Amino acid sequence: MKFKEIGEFGFIESIKKECITTLKDIIKGIGDDCAVFGPYSGRVLLFTTDMLVEDIHFLKAKITPYQLGWKTIAVNLSDIAAMGGRPLFLLISLAIPAEMNVELIQDFYKGMKDICEHYEVNILGGDTVASPDKLVISVSLIGDAKENEVLYRSGARPGDRIYVTGNVGDSSAGLKILKNEISPPKSIASHFIKIHNEPKPLIKTGRIIAASRLASAMIDLSDGLLSDLGHICKESGVGAILFRSKIPLSSELKLLASRVKLNPIDLAFSGGEDYLLLLTVPEAKIKDFEILYKDKGSSPLYLIGEIREKKGVRMVNDDGSIEEISIRGFNHFSPSFLDP
Amino acid sequence: MKFKEIGEFGFIESIKKECITTLKDIIKGIGDDCAVFGPYSGRVLLFTTDMLVEDIHFLKAKITPYQLGWKTIAVNLSDIAAMGGRPLFLLISLAIPAEMNVELIQDFYKGMKDICEHYEVNILGGDTVASPDKLVISVSLIGDAKENEVLYRSGARPGDRIYVTGNVGDSSAGLKILKNEISPPKSIASHFIKIHNEPKPLIKTGRIIAASRLASAMIDLSDGLLSDLGHICKESGVGAILFRSKIPLSSELKLLASRVKLNPIDLAFSGGEDYLLLLTVPEAKIKDFEILYKDKGSSPLYLIGEIREKKGVRMVNDDGSIEEISIRGFNHFSPSFLDP
Repeated sequence: MKFKEIGEFGFIESIKKECITTLKDIIKGIGDDCAVFGPYSGRVLLFTTDMLVEDIHFLKAKITPYQLGWKTIAVNLSDIAAMGGRPLFLLISLAIPAEMNVELIQDFYKGMKDICEHYEVNILGGDTVASPDKLVISVSLIGDAKENEVLYRSGARPGDRIYVTGNVGDSSAGLKILKNEISPPKSIASHFIKIHNEPKPLIKTGRIIAASRLASAMIDLSDGLLSDLGHICKESGVGAILFRSKIPLSSELKLLASRVKLNPIDLAFSGGEDYLLLLTVPEAKIKDFEILYKDKGSSPLYLIGEIREKKGVRMVNDDGSIEEISIRGFNHFSPSFLDP
Repeated sequence: MKFKEIGEFGFIESIKKECITTLKDIIKGIGDDCAVFGPYSGRVLLFTTDMLVEDIHFLKAKITPYQLGWKTIAVNLSDIAAMGGRPLFLLISLAIPAEMNVELIQDFYKGMKDICEHYEVNILGGDTVASPDKLVISVSLIGDAKENEVLYRSGARPGDRIYVTGNVGDSSAGLKILKNEISPPKSIASHFIKIHNEPKPLIKTGRIIAASRLASAMIDLSDGLLSDLGHICKESGVGAILFRSKIPLSSELKLLASRVKLNPIDLAFSGGEDYLLLLTVPEAKIKDFEILYKDKGSSPLYLIGEIREKKGVRMVNDDGSIEEISIRGFNHFSPSFLDP
């Protein structure tokens, strides 16, 4: 069987077994935004990694080296945000084509260093190797959190409300513009490209949510709203409904949809790379949570659905009709992704 | 400037600045086999990463997928061994060509899982992405050690003796055979190929040395004896002499050198990938160290030189003459490496 046939998630299922040889100190292995181990003096450590490959995750012509450095770290920080943690230390590995300009890589490092300084993260080292042709970047990041504040994908229960911390779909529209699939006027395009190329990981928001101890599950939106909600449902053993009319869309996305052929709900559901937080809160706690979040939260908050016992994700349309929706999203081995 | 002109070590120098934004909990950043942070309840954490790229670090035709999995983890474990630590948790990132056979990657995972089980290391997750053509592997590993037992590159002082824990150069001979640069009979070749493809990281040996608290500095031999000794000298601000007649060579390497055109000392000095430990011990402690090591050590031990105040590495020849030797070794951007 070829890799593109089994896909990313099928492959992970196939190799999941026998990864843990001793259970000592392991709180969470495969299956969440970060691995979790410890505790050490009441705090647990969070451990995550992401790999970015030229021509798969980025096109050199479509992002500046500085932005690429920023985004590389941002996607890792977002995994720490999704657990409610604080990012601490990272290692950067690069496979660099021999003919690549040093200045380009130094600009790339400038972007990484600036976001690290902003979020008080330290670069502790890495590995620098040659690559036959493509630039490949791998970052591994350690963070920490109070043991009793960490939020997993697995904590959602029927009746919990589903929230998202911002407008969904703008990043995906940015990617479509960069890939020339849609061509809006430049004045409209720049908003989406900036959101796609310069994501802002919601570390502070994640920590406020975790410290409230009112939420039951959390994930960051990297694969797409439906796919990431699907991860929560799978790990929690539940299903969900989403209210179509409550999915938050930016005024920019609505304007764009009026100019080019585009279904904004499709982008919101399947687009990916929003790097917002998707979380669930038990019904009995939503009032306290909304008051506390409004007081302390730096991001907006939208109630978009509910967790249900029945598996699968269903959408409640504006007329009250309910439709089953399949979980589409970012799959690194889907043919459409490899042939952009 | 092109990347191949600045080279790996030149590049690292150029980006070293401004990597640390807060000093909190950081014991060692860039410049050793692992980053070190903590302590947490008297233990520090060790953090290391390695990237392996198809056609640069390995040729699919020259190593089995199982061996590649084993070796991928072994080279990371060796970095933990070099600090005297205990390996604990790792993340594996893979960029996989869509056309690659799943079975191949599963064999690769089998090799990784077997070495992890052997060394009681847990695989906690990772990232799986598509690659346009080459397989790229990145592993990041966390270990720990008692705070007062960790061995750094920077502890060597003039007068310290230099030891190595096994025969040097066999792995490099194996690489030459795999690259068809030399063609000994198959009965001779297999020893070297096995050593090159299935390194055994010296975790137990490293921990014995660290727990003795008699050594002053340690590193693993990955870049080559001269290059790695050079790292110790640089970080410690010292120089060294090596006794040519004391460099340990296997009987197999001596036999090989008698059959094909080969200088075994060249391989020993510049070959790389031995994954042995190179360490220094203060003169006043060598007697105690040798007794303790003989009692507990599972690897051999060879005294090969001395640390000197004068910078640079010099070789004492069999006739007592001394020659300055330049530090050659594994540089990922040297033209000879890219054009094997």
